[in-house]
Amino acid sequence: MADPRFHSVAGPFSMEELADLAGAEVAGAPADNGPFIDVMPLSDAGPQHVSFLDNKLYVEAFESSNAGACIVRPEMADRAPGHMALLLTDTPYHGYARVAQAFYPSPSRDGAVPQTACVAADAMVANSVVIEAGAVIGKKAEIGDGCRIATNAVIGDGVVIGEGGYVGPGASISHCIAGARVTVHAGVRIGQDGFGFALGPDGHLKVPQLGRVIIGDDVEIGANTTIDRGTGPDTMIGDGTKIDNLVQIAHNVKIGRHCVVVSQVGVSGSTEIGDFVMLGGQAGLTGHLNIGSGARIAAQSGVMRDIEPGTTVGGSPAKPMRTWLKEVAALERLVSKKGN
Amino acid sequence: MADPRFHSVAGPFSMEELADLAGAEVAGAPADNGPFIDVMPLSDAGPQHVSFLDNKLYVEAFESSNAGACIVRPEMADRAPGHMALLLTDTPYHGYARVAQAFYPSPSRDGAVPQTACVAADAMVANSVVIEAGAVIGKKAEIGDGCRIATNAVIGDGVVIGEGGYVGPGASISHCIAGARVTVHAGVRIGQDGFGFALGPDGHLKVPQLGRVIIGDDVEIGANTTIDRGTGPDTMIGDGTKIDNLVQIAHNVKIGRHCVVVSQVGVSGSTEIGDFVMLGGQAGLTGHLNIGSGARIAAQSGVMRDIEPGTTVGGSPAKPMRTWLKEVAALERLVSKKGN
Amino acid sequence: MADPRFHSVAGPFSMEELADLAGAEVAGAPADNGPFIDVMPLSDAGPQHVSFLDNKLYVEAFESSNAGACIVRPEMADRAPGHMALLLTDTPYHGYARVAQAFYPSPSRDGAVPQTACVAADAMVANSVVIEAGAVIGKKAEIGDGCRIATNAVIGDGVVIGEGGYVGPGASISHCIAGARVTVHAGVRIGQDGFGFALGPDGHLKVPQLGRVIIGDDVEIGANTTIDRGTGPDTMIGDGTKIDNLVQIAHNVKIGRHCVVVSQVGVSGSTEIGDFVMLGGQAGLTGHLNIGSGARIAAQSGVMRDIEPGTTVGGSPAKPMRTWLKEVAALERLVSKKGN
Repeated sequence: MADPRFHSVAGPFSMEELADLAGAEVAGAPADNGPFIDVMPLSDAGPQHVSFLDNKLYVEAFESSNAGACIVRPEMADRAPGHMALLLTDTPYHGYARVAQAFYPSPSRDGAVPQTACVAADAMVANSVVIEAGAVIGKKAEIGDGCRIATNAVIGDGVVIGEGGYVGPGASISHCIAGARVTVHAGVRIGQDGFGFALGPDGHLKVPQLGRVIIGDDVEIGANTTIDRGTGPDTMIGDGTKIDNLVQIAHNVKIGRHCVVVSQVGVSGSTEIGDFVMLGGQAGLTGHLNIGSGARIAAQSGVMRDIEPGTTVGGSPAKPMRTWLKEVAALERLVSKKGN
Repeated sequence: MADPRFHSVAGPFSMEELADLAGAEVAGAPADNGPFIDVMPLSDAGPQHVSFLDNKLYVEAFESSNAGACIVRPEMADRAPGHMALLLTDTPYHGYARVAQAFYPSPSRDGAVPQTACVAADAMVANSVVIEAGAVIGKKAEIGDGCRIATNAVIGDGVVIGEGGYVGPGASISHCIAGARVTVHAGVRIGQDGFGFALGPDGHLKVPQLGRVIIGDDVEIGANTTIDRGTGPDTMIGDGTKIDNLVQIAHNVKIGRHCVVVSQVGVSGSTEIGDFVMLGGQAGLTGHLNIGSGARIAAQSGVMRDIEPGTTVGGSPAKPMRTWLKEVAALERLVSKKGN
Repeated sequence: MADPRFHSVAGPFSMEELADLAGAEVAGAPADNGPFIDVMPLSDAGPQHVSFLDNKLYVEAFESSNAGACIVRPEMADRAPGHMALLLTDTPYHGYARVAQAFYPSPSRDGAVPQTACVAADAMVANSVVIEAGAVIGKKAEIGDGCRIATNAVIGDGVVIGEGGYVGPGASISHCIAGARVTVHAGVRIGQDGFGFALGPDGHLKVPQLGRVIIGDDVEIGANTTIDRGTGPDTMIGDGTKIDNLVQIAHNVKIGRHCVVVSQVGVSGSTEIGDFVMLGGQAGLTGHLNIGSGARIAAQSGVMRDIEPGTTVGGSPAKPMRTWLKEVAALERLVSKKGN
């Protein structure tokens, strides 16, 4: 499936190895299936490929697929073609993710620091860290085991990046303490001054921004996203939260665990967001709000008030999803009734 | 017109050369006009300058202009002052663009690779390529004739940039095959992982992103725009499409030929866009949509459904432009009627 | 308050020094208060700390604070606890900003140019300028006294940066003349081509962008913001204007003095904005508009018409704030009346 110019395939893997990776039970397996050389969509897969079925839209493709193996929910087992080995799990997309990670592991790099990189003498960089050309590591910075600091990335003085971290090309990080397995994509900006001014008729006076950015474990931050450091309190991103490209996180914002923040969202200063919150693309949140855990905020919403846990909202100004949809419908009727 | 500190003027050009460049016919030309030393707006131009008239708002400025020559539609010829030579064409703004390109060609650079640049030993870089300070070219990357890779730009392993390409300062490109004459402005991010996770109550699992970004000929991509690579299928940008600054293009998006995508637009995963589509600033499109060729999407629209070819839509959620404008008007009347 | 890993505290300061810094009068001062070693919020401060009270929400914290000194309005003096020295001023937040700036001055850097930086032979760089690793300064560029050009920042040919400027990591600037004390945060893109094309059915032709970006004194520009150069006229940002992260400023835009532009705003080409205008987050302005001085534009507004000076607008399309709020309320009533 993947272009070998860019992606190196590992494997092959046996049925048993795949079952282990996917956390699945083997079923309906013809004795001689495998080894498997790659992942492949149902429609393109052959006897040496492993595929998956998660979305019911693809059941027909499943029934007619030539895949040698498929990761699938137990209730779909009886619709499989006879030649197919099955890997049964209640979470086939998760299973696929782990199998695909095994076929396409992160590329290994050699560890020599290029001449054009610049590492401060008192930085604490683990031996296994890969530092690419043009990267800069500041004074007393700490870079954990297995990190990769990509080309032209900039790690500021004192910054801590936990083990297994990745900082993409041209990204810059200052005033930040990040946990383990944090992925920071290309061009991300973390830790610069927040937008803090004492406004006045003679001009606006800069207020020193004395906090930090604290990032939990397993956080991913998309390309060209910006996260400002706190004013005194810290800006915080909780464990497992995934942030897409071009998102703005202002000073003192707290985001909880396992949130999903889609592209071009903006969160204003000091707003606090619970766990497992979903923020749709281009949504905007004003400052000093509380967004309860499990809330879902539709794309392009304009959130100006606190949101109760578990609530779904939409519209600008944002309101409960059902109310918003009613308003949209009412406005449509208003126009059609008038025969305009 | 242009500050010589930043822009070097070429020329001078004769009437005949200008006519050739503009694809225009000479008319009303006093025998001794020219040579011409620069382009200039109608109101500022003198006898040695060439100007243009495209927008009818400027007819008065045309009638009283001192320009030695003007690129103009044939039907305006009889409103020209007697001293002015005319370059007649039905597309005067295109003519002006070509004349201005001739007066202000891309600056030439010397080709020595600076010491702080870093080019992989097995990269295939054409002799005429200019590589500026701090730029990095990855393994087996291919850079075509006449490309310029600007300061601190990063070209990843295996990436192909066709002839005449430009990659601006600090931009980074990976997992990408780009055609000829592609312009990538400063800080653009192409080819990083898409936002793909298997969501779950125990956290979200990263799904390997195994595709590429395929870019056609004559594409322009604005500063700090982000284009993620596909999940397995590719992300694709068609020939001649122009993308403005700070735009987000998610994984698997297909954009057709000669589209215009204005600043801060966001296009979600797997949406397919036809040819000659116009996307206004800050418009957002959800995933898995089909947008027909020739569609026009107003600024700030929130597109949640497929759009028929040639349709103009506005509003959030987006609807046919006429319906949206009626709704806006109906809401205004509702408030004014109530005497609130 | 601030983590010494990232922030170095200066001081201590006496009451008299603090009064001087804050432009305040000393009152109610127990003779032996001070010296003061840090700024601290009211709730956390002890006898050696200076705090401030600006927002009336914190009056209770003020009354019970252990702070040794507090910057506060004269009318609050009689509510202070007896142990507290007072620094009386009508603008306590400004006073705090100046005191905090004194406690946390910009870190000093040594001036040696690192080997991986690249400064053109004919660039005019003042002796006191700090140039960090990987930074690139172009031909005939001029960098004023006391500037800091951070890691991997790129200053293009001919660019002028006035005294006391800061250009953050990975930022790039071309075709620009900037005044004194301009702060450009990480990843900012200034001076690239505007989005100018002669559109047509056979494709879109690039129009040379022959202008510059002119930036006044005391301007601040947030991370990953983009400011395109003019088409012939210049793009201009007035003295004291503060621009947040991920903002788009198109070609030929003129922004006046002391404006505040919040994150993710987009301003289209040739729009002119007066002085002291406030643009809320994610607001979008179409091109060729006039926005009067003192106008306030709410977050997510879609501005499609000129705005009178001093007016407040909201909504998309934007209208006077009062009208917009009435429409929002009318739509709510429409739905609730119908018992839907």
